[in-house]
Amino acid sequence: MKPIALDAMGGDYAPRETVAGAVMAAKEGVPVVLVGQKAALEAELARHSATLPIVDTPDFIRMEDHATDVRKRKEASINVCMQLLKAGEASAVVAMGHTGATLASALFTLGRIKGVERPTLLVEMPSEKGKVFLADGGANADCRPSFLVQFAVMATAYARANGVAEPTVGLLNIGEEDEKGDQLRLETFPLLKAAPGIRFVGNVEGRDIFKGTSDVVVTDGFTGNVVLKLSEGEARTILKWVREALTGSLLSKLGALLVRGSLQGLRAKMDPAEYGAMPLLGVEGAVFIGHGSANARAVHSALRKARSAVEAGLVERIRSGIAQLVVG
Amino acid sequence: MKPIALDAMGGDYAPRETVAGAVMAAKEGVPVVLVGQKAALEAELARHSATLPIVDTPDFIRMEDHATDVRKRKEASINVCMQLLKAGEASAVVAMGHTGATLASALFTLGRIKGVERPTLLVEMPSEKGKVFLADGGANADCRPSFLVQFAVMATAYARANGVAEPTVGLLNIGEEDEKGDQLRLETFPLLKAAPGIRFVGNVEGRDIFKGTSDVVVTDGFTGNVVLKLSEGEARTILKWVREALTGSLLSKLGALLVRGSLQGLRAKMDPAEYGAMPLLGVEGAVFIGHGSANARAVHSALRKARSAVEAGLVERIRSGIAQLVVG
Repeated sequence: MKPIALDAMGGDYAPRETVAGAVMAAKEGVPVVLVGQKAALEAELARHSATLPIVDTPDFIRMEDHATDVRKRKEASINVCMQLLKAGEASAVVAMGHTGATLASALFTLGRIKGVERPTLLVEMPSEKGKVFLADGGANADCRPSFLVQFAVMATAYARANGVAEPTVGLLNIGEEDEKGDQLRLETFPLLKAAPGIRFVGNVEGRDIFKGTSDVVVTDGFTGNVVLKLSEGEARTILKWVREALTGSLLSKLGALLVRGSLQGLRAKMDPAEYGAMPLLGVEGAVFIGHGSANARAVHSALRKARSAVEAGLVERIRSGIAQLVVG
Repeated sequence: MKPIALDAMGGDYAPRETVAGAVMAAKEGVPVVLVGQKAALEAELARHSATLPIVDTPDFIRMEDHATDVRKRKEASINVCMQLLKAGEASAVVAMGHTGATLASALFTLGRIKGVERPTLLVEMPSEKGKVFLADGGANADCRPSFLVQFAVMATAYARANGVAEPTVGLLNIGEEDEKGDQLRLETFPLLKAAPGIRFVGNVEGRDIFKGTSDVVVTDGFTGNVVLKLSEGEARTILKWVREALTGSLLSKLGALLVRGSLQGLRAKMDPAEYGAMPLLGVEGAVFIGHGSANARAVHSALRKARSAVEAGLVERIRSGIAQLVVG
């Protein structure tokens, strides 16, 4: 397998955390090539007494730069990552940080899979049944019904690549009955019902996401992004309240000591760093985009996730799903 | 103060829970009139050795009935509640259960406040700073920018009536910068910025809701309803996971006993029954709509909330806020 190109300059804590995460992944046998400023990356590698291949790129996109800057700055690290992927010298791209720039760079350099109207960011969320795959996580604020059908097909392909044999698909809506929702949902429902290659189970509601009523949840990128950020924020607040409740009195302080280990597992389950990065589905290559605030563990998770996706033939799966849709 | 008309037949556990809740509220001095089937209500009252005024209505809207049924069935309990309010014989209406029917009945019987394009359901959510007032909670799936501006004005009036002196207003969006979001948000932003009588603080994101970044959060009814149901579902799932984590081992079982009391307070904070019901803002009268699954405690909370709203002059506040907007 060709190495995964990591934009080592992307994210709030780059290159320290990106390099640390890459070293962790490489130790497990994940092939990685670092893309970024050579001197800075070598200094970080030295701290770990590690060596990794480096592609030297002096320029990189800062968090405060505009997404459209990738069109002018061809030699920026994120663009070089995509060029390596396109040339077949890398098997995937992982970038933490500037979502807009990564999206633009992927679209511009790799292009869309034939038949895909809009690529989608897929979000993995914890649920009572394991995992829920939500699309779109924020790549497309305004959506047409056909976009949502394609999100369903692409998310189904991703869920299958992640070991879910027959993923069920729900349309996120404000009622369970078929005739519910706004104009977009009313028009999307019959299209999903008729779409080949997906297992549509009807409307699901906000409360169904954490219940895990369906494996895949489809929505527009505005709603999906609100869902993603609300669920992260709520988890953080509730776990904070739990901590406060547990340290409120001397008696409960003692109890808190006894339950600490049990709660750590739960905190890990709710931690975005565990999920590492979101796949960008629908472009010609395996691309993963992580939080700007990613730490080494998140980078590590993202690289592992990218390797699994490549091994499971993610891009081919999406290609064939979309082809079936276009023919059907 | 005129009594609050309670649709005693509404909700999954009516009339048992509605009557029990009404009795609890009446004991605290909240004036209530029960609207529903007299014999059934008297039987429930007898269980509490209580007496309350009753308006006898043989018909009532079932959960499985259509919202539009309220147009034909003039004598249904929810319609009679609204007629009492319109005639000045009741000061407010509280109905648990059929949201669509209650909305339709309020619009049909009471009508909208002059200048209001669409009434809104307001949701109160817990936050790290206390409470967040979110509108729209689901009354309007498809929204125009002007609707959102009116929601902001009406939610501001409600927050003021609830003791928030200068409520800040955020537009729920997928980024903090001014130029973010879908078409609806891009068009709404400058209107909110220019609107008189509200304290607009710009865009807020999903993660800001539980943080309490702004007192009021404005969004369309589709997104708002997803937020409402997601946040309830997530809280339920996380607290379930906390319980499971706490009873996983013998050591943590002992700890769990010690922390039980502390966690009960937290569970109450996250319990929708505490919030009782959502006000319907923008109709000519104080109307509160609760969960279909409401228990006596939720009915009790809803009746108390309705009394506070009447005492704080909610409808007049909304009238003057909207008038200012129309003139401005």
